[in-house]
Amino acid sequence: MRGTVLHAPGDVRSETLPVPQILQPTDAIIETSATCVCGSDLWPYRGINKFDKPWAIGHEYCGVVREVGADVTTVRPGQFVIGSFFASDNTCPHCLAGYQSGCEQVVPVTGCQAEAIRIPLADGTLVSTPDTPSDDMLPDLLALSDVMGTGWYAALAAGVHPGHTTVVVGDGAVGLSAVLAAKELGAGRIIAMSRHADRQAIAREFGATDIVEERGDEAVARVKELTNGVGADSIAECVGTNESMTTAIDSARQGGGVGFVGVPHGVRLSMGKLFSSHVRIQGGGAPVRDYLPDLISRVYDGSFHPGRVFDLRLPLADVAEGYRAMDERRAIKAFLTP
Amino acid sequence: MRGTVLHAPGDVRSETLPVPQILQPTDAIIETSATCVCGSDLWPYRGINKFDKPWAIGHEYCGVVREVGADVTTVRPGQFVIGSFFASDNTCPHCLAGYQSGCEQVVPVTGCQAEAIRIPLADGTLVSTPDTPSDDMLPDLLALSDVMGTGWYAALAAGVHPGHTTVVVGDGAVGLSAVLAAKELGAGRIIAMSRHADRQAIAREFGATDIVEERGDEAVARVKELTNGVGADSIAECVGTNESMTTAIDSARQGGGVGFVGVPHGVRLSMGKLFSSHVRIQGGGAPVRDYLPDLISRVYDGSFHPGRVFDLRLPLADVAEGYRAMDERRAIKAFLTP
Repeated sequence: MRGTVLHAPGDVRSETLPVPQILQPTDAIIETSATCVCGSDLWPYRGINKFDKPWAIGHEYCGVVREVGADVTTVRPGQFVIGSFFASDNTCPHCLAGYQSGCEQVVPVTGCQAEAIRIPLADGTLVSTPDTPSDDMLPDLLALSDVMGTGWYAALAAGVHPGHTTVVVGDGAVGLSAVLAAKELGAGRIIAMSRHADRQAIAREFGATDIVEERGDEAVARVKELTNGVGADSIAECVGTNESMTTAIDSARQGGGVGFVGVPHGVRLSMGKLFSSHVRIQGGGAPVRDYLPDLISRVYDGSFHPGRVFDLRLPLADVAEGYRAMDERRAIKAFLTP
Repeated sequence: MRGTVLHAPGDVRSETLPVPQILQPTDAIIETSATCVCGSDLWPYRGINKFDKPWAIGHEYCGVVREVGADVTTVRPGQFVIGSFFASDNTCPHCLAGYQSGCEQVVPVTGCQAEAIRIPLADGTLVSTPDTPSDDMLPDLLALSDVMGTGWYAALAAGVHPGHTTVVVGDGAVGLSAVLAAKELGAGRIIAMSRHADRQAIAREFGATDIVEERGDEAVARVKELTNGVGADSIAECVGTNESMTTAIDSARQGGGVGFVGVPHGVRLSMGKLFSSHVRIQGGGAPVRDYLPDLISRVYDGSFHPGRVFDLRLPLADVAEGYRAMDERRAIKAFLTP
């Protein structure tokens, strides 16, 4: 079958790989309906995250169950499913508390930019849709596997509540998804930080009421201007650098919340700044599994379109062009179909 | 009048100082009924916090209003009052959100280890009690001015909820107060980290169900043992060092909360650790003003005795012995009366 292998920084290839097989009785095999490239795939692609051997990359997926292991009871062959990028048992104390991405048995899912995928812990990881969706629903449903779920977690971790003024730092696909999450969770004012016209347009479509093009201290000053000097109630930090985290914290009102989902790259935080601002922070890999039932319902309700973040569609065979386009910022997020 | 001046590290003196006068129409002058020495007073006393000239020290107080400025309307001469160690207007957006210690006009209160005190922003800072309390209520009421309010904030910032397993790191007066706060807020299991028998006894009296004498990684291992490997739901960090903050975060379950009230001394936090644990953190100077009405009611109800943290009573003139006893850990907290 066709799959994707990252051989070295900048060298990603579509290749013929062995068809995945059931290895554990808790596994499922999925025929991929759609997959995509994540912003976090660019870290190893750009050589910033080191790796020492070629590996089958990709962790966002939806598709039809082809086969399940002997112990799998909640999904069956023929069902359309979406899963989290972290496989989880969904029964341990961390899962039951809503942190499936911190499951006692957690397994990072990989090899998903492929025609078929083996998913471990299928019962705890996969959620089936009410029916087999039409092709035009695939972008919205695929987005739930990571990018939309991650934006959702950013908004929840930031503590977005109805009527809030919410800032989103980062205009990548996750940042745009956080704008949509803030809107769905009732934020009254959503300030998106973006300096790209195409991303600003999607942010506005998703519910942004204000755009801030400045960065760093100037961006913070703009947020203060827009909030009568008070600062924002909640901030979704969707980049993962020292500068973006500082911008997020400095944009908050006293006691405001920052949800951070950009994978921190060497970020070390001064506790003094958190102490004087009373800002609450929470971050991490999103427990997407927890949100899937709700988010699937929202997509099926018909007015929730997280798939708008995909602005490039390619056949799976052209995955390398998806990486290039995202790396060169010609595309926000590449949608791939086998 | 008699007041206390910190001249140099280790050199604190009881002296005759000018009687404080109304300087602003929003000021009040209080005749001190009781005051005390704070753990944070030991930072400059030990020379860790630098200062360049002698200053009138002390920020915990309760007493009787003697005089108010022309604009003061909520308290009047003759009333017994307790105030926060941060003066606040209690009307700005930060105050209205419950963060009076981040008030737009915030003024740190000082000079309280004295027979009389000038309190700025009296309307927003002072809260009167239902009547003039008896002397035996003074320790419980004085504790609300900082130490108990700070423990309360630590527990709230940690997200303590009914049924929680809560850890308290630090067995100083604030840590012990956080144990009491966790108990009042409904924690089902309270693990106090302490290696001093006298402090353990108060912790148990305040509601601690388990004592952990280990420190660092060993303390974390004990918490994991006590929680079937899961970790605690909420942790109050009441020390303010790198080690204590690390112990607090490592003791949490996935997505648990850490409230930190120990003033951070050069602590820099790895975001990677927060990312992988989903731990939520919030800290800062406690917005004591927000809690005073509730905490005063609890004291008047008769079964809430935060004043138990005072284990040394001295006349104000002997304040230097209070500092020495706390510095040498012969006392938990010194209670002073003029």
